Amino acid sequence: MQNLRFQRALRAVDPSLVYRSNDVYDKRIGDVIVSVKDVSERAEVVCVLIGVPQHIGVERNGGRPGAADGPSSFRRAFTKLAISAFEQHIDSGRLAIADAGDIDTEGKTLEQIHDEQYDVVAQVLSSGFVPIVVGGGHDTAWPTIRALEAQGRPYGVVNIDAHADVRPLKDGGRAHSGSPFYQMLTQQPSHLQAGGFVEFGLQHTCVSASHLAFVRDAGMHAVMLDEIRRHGCLSAWGNAWPHAAAAGNVYVSLDVDAFASAYAPGVSAPAADGLSPADVASILRDASESGKLRAFDIVELNPAYDVDGRTAKLTAVMAYEVVTGLATRL
Amino acid sequence: MQNLRFQRALRAVDPSLVYRSNDVYDKRIGDVIVSVKDVSERAEVVCVLIGVPQHIGVERNGGRPGAADGPSSFRRAFTKLAISAFEQHIDSGRLAIADAGDIDTEGKTLEQIHDEQYDVVAQVLSSGFVPIVVGGGHDTAWPTIRALEAQGRPYGVVNIDAHADVRPLKDGGRAHSGSPFYQMLTQQPSHLQAGGFVEFGLQHTCVSASHLAFVRDAGMHAVMLDEIRRHGCLSAWGNAWPHAAAAGNVYVSLDVDAFASAYAPGVSAPAADGLSPADVASILRDASESGKLRAFDIVELNPAYDVDGRTAKLTAVMAYEVVTGLATRL
Amino acid sequence: MQNLRFQRALRAVDPSLVYRSNDVYDKRIGDVIVSVKDVSERAEVVCVLIGVPQHIGVERNGGRPGAADGPSSFRRAFTKLAISAFEQHIDSGRLAIADAGDIDTEGKTLEQIHDEQYDVVAQVLSSGFVPIVVGGGHDTAWPTIRALEAQGRPYGVVNIDAHADVRPLKDGGRAHSGSPFYQMLTQQPSHLQAGGFVEFGLQHTCVSASHLAFVRDAGMHAVMLDEIRRHGCLSAWGNAWPHAAAAGNVYVSLDVDAFASAYAPGVSAPAADGLSPADVASILRDASESGKLRAFDIVELNPAYDVDGRTAKLTAVMAYEVVTGLATRL
Repeated sequence: MQNLRFQRALRAVDPSLVYRSNDVYDKRIGDVIVSVKDVSERAEVVCVLIGVPQHIGVERNGGRPGAADGPSSFRRAFTKLAISAFEQHIDSGRLAIADAGDIDTEGKTLEQIHDEQYDVVAQVLSSGFVPIVVGGGHDTAWPTIRALEAQGRPYGVVNIDAHADVRPLKDGGRAHSGSPFYQMLTQQPSHLQAGGFVEFGLQHTCVSASHLAFVRDAGMHAVMLDEIRRHGCLSAWGNAWPHAAAAGNVYVSLDVDAFASAYAPGVSAPAADGLSPADVASILRDASESGKLRAFDIVELNPAYDVDGRTAKLTAVMAYEVVTGLATRL
Repeated sequence: MQNLRFQRALRAVDPSLVYRSNDVYDKRIGDVIVSVKDVSERAEVVCVLIGVPQHIGVERNGGRPGAADGPSSFRRAFTKLAISAFEQHIDSGRLAIADAGDIDTEGKTLEQIHDEQYDVVAQVLSSGFVPIVVGGGHDTAWPTIRALEAQGRPYGVVNIDAHADVRPLKDGGRAHSGSPFYQMLTQQPSHLQAGGFVEFGLQHTCVSASHLAFVRDAGMHAVMLDEIRRHGCLSAWGNAWPHAAAAGNVYVSLDVDAFASAYAPGVSAPAADGLSPADVASILRDASESGKLRAFDIVELNPAYDVDGRTAKLTAVMAYEVVTGLATRL
Repeated sequence: MQNLRFQRALRAVDPSLVYRSNDVYDKRIGDVIVSVKDVSERAEVVCVLIGVPQHIGVERNGGRPGAADGPSSFRRAFTKLAISAFEQHIDSGRLAIADAGDIDTEGKTLEQIHDEQYDVVAQVLSSGFVPIVVGGGHDTAWPTIRALEAQGRPYGVVNIDAHADVRPLKDGGRAHSGSPFYQMLTQQPSHLQAGGFVEFGLQHTCVSASHLAFVRDAGMHAVMLDEIRRHGCLSAWGNAWPHAAAAGNVYVSLDVDAFASAYAPGVSAPAADGLSPADVASILRDASESGKLRAFDIVELNPAYDVDGRTAKLTAVMAYEVVTGLATRL
């Protein structure tokens, strides 16, 4: 029995966000997505959406609010996508896309929200399902890392991002959207693979020398945008991915500001230059086809700055690449 | 005598849309474009603009209106372009760019508009001129296909698009912006080359498995965006083009939503990912230099969603590539 | 003593435009930029910002106003950038980024403004510093060329642009944003290297045949966007750069409309197609690493049409590439 019943109460998805074609010849994700309670026992690959509608961590980091609406904006775009890349596997029941709903953030501190998210992600991972967490700010990564840690198996982490997000905690030890990987590298994770953390797409203009040194002094890897260009994206990825993949279990975090802002205007901290949709699609496909991807997230989608839903659609397409890649294992 | 006198009355172009530099050292298309009645007998290559200012087909397909303003927006941008790529051929009179005006859509049904467009495009084709039809929704392609069919010669068709546009007709057999290639493939065209239809740039997120199967079961070709990336655009095009070109006469339809919406925000149905201007320019140049391009159109330009004329300018530049390529035969 | 005291009074930079992190572990350009009066004697590479806040030349050329706010918009974005690419050289004092402030344009004619800019740039060049001039319209290039000329040494010029900017002067011999290279090529510069002017990224849709002929008849080079695509940007650059570099001293002018407008919406005359940030970053890096770059400018940034600061950030990143490249000589 694969059906998940979370100990934590999640908020149900607003049905008006879910697009349905109601046309068997034109199925969209909204036609086939199921509640996490209703995943078929036949499903061998199960992707579970988990929304984290908050931007407390962004605000603590001095960023502009709006990411709290990320999960809704994502779902509206994601459920509208046609499922042709994996329709046969949905039809056979071997692939399931489930929605767990949103973490209940109402009236909670960031620390409480993180604890709730930790519980949910840990349960999803324990079930062998692949969580697709939609933030929220990048602090959203930290509870996912704790949940991976709790699985008791070695893991690697890839952060696709313009920024390193290894800033120290704020006064009083408070986490924020710039600190998740600082927390990961300082709070002695016992199962993070040695050398198993890769930052991919960092821009010199977005990261300080001391933050870069912090990553590298920890034996980890920072792959800068200009290196990626010199070598070509897939080639640079081919050099970087094995570091994270050595553990056999990888979590990939996609900060939407890794894209040039022409493609992704709706983010908390836009970068004028950055990766292209083709770049990120190709590396997400590679990661998800590897059989080693255990968790994925999309963070810093900020609909308040989006242009005609462009960024929401882009994040939806990126999640779709992950589902497509996972389905190739079937 | 090459001068065309259409049996159908077209609406004259609003002169305020036509940019003129009135500077012989800085000629723009608006300085050299002629009425279709005034094409010189010396002209060996004649491109004829035909506007189809309607979005009835888009609305029938549940899309957002605005494409009716496509032709005006296109002309404003197109006539402003400098003619340096083919100025010698304009000056020698061997190349002509003519404007037939707009199909008169006032108070007409989509079917009536299609019939009018059919007549005009058929006359242009019969004259050996190359129609450049500016929609309007993608239903605009259907009367052009009928006009090709009426020439009595084999032809191939390339659709550059994120979507397949092979949806069945709506209730009562009504055409819409998603159905032109369904109509082409089901209404027994006798001269469409076997295997001569190529869909290029389709995205799995934008097309259903059954629509893809419909295309392929008809012996036709669907080239997906991710394949195009894997092989490189010109290389994927090099594999696809011969299928359409085998007939010796090719019609290329460019749906503006084939572009990533960063480049083309002003469309009826934007896609976050997609082809780049460089991609499409290179394949349009290849097609038009082949000596086999008989008709071209630009559809789904929707100025209501454009950003500072970006999409209108992009479509203008794409039409310019076609004129440039055609002129290389001189 | 390297401290520059300009004979001309410049307007001090509004401190509210200068971002400071005040965090030694996260230094930004705003934390380390100095007044041009305070450049350390140890500095071996000194970049000097000079703002030219006017759009008189744009208006004379019939363009849309707004570029007068370019310098402020640039500074806001530039001072926010992290300095990781060259932090060691800032810390050692061997690299300095200085700000001379803005040319005082208040109540002046374009000719008076150009004379003021000429004096300032000439002094900066005489000091062996590298001016980074931020316009204003492209007429801003002309006083910089005069200042290079005044150095009495051979020089080459590269213009990265969609347009050729070799238009004749307006009535009464008045300069404008489309005329700087016309002035350069007609006003008998004695030290411009024979064949040493390269226009890179020109688009056939943006330049007339007679303007192209004017450049080529002068023995100079126009590299069109479609050629750049056929050969690959770095390869096309590798062919073009030696023409300008032969002189040993090169001035590179970056017109922001060389970028596709998806990346750079905030310009006076946007082009739908164009170079990408990756393209321009790579060639600027190449130029600045050569040891031959003597002057750089960014022109036609027009914040009135920008989208969420995207274009300002892009120009800031491009200036950063130049600083990074210059610092590789240390």
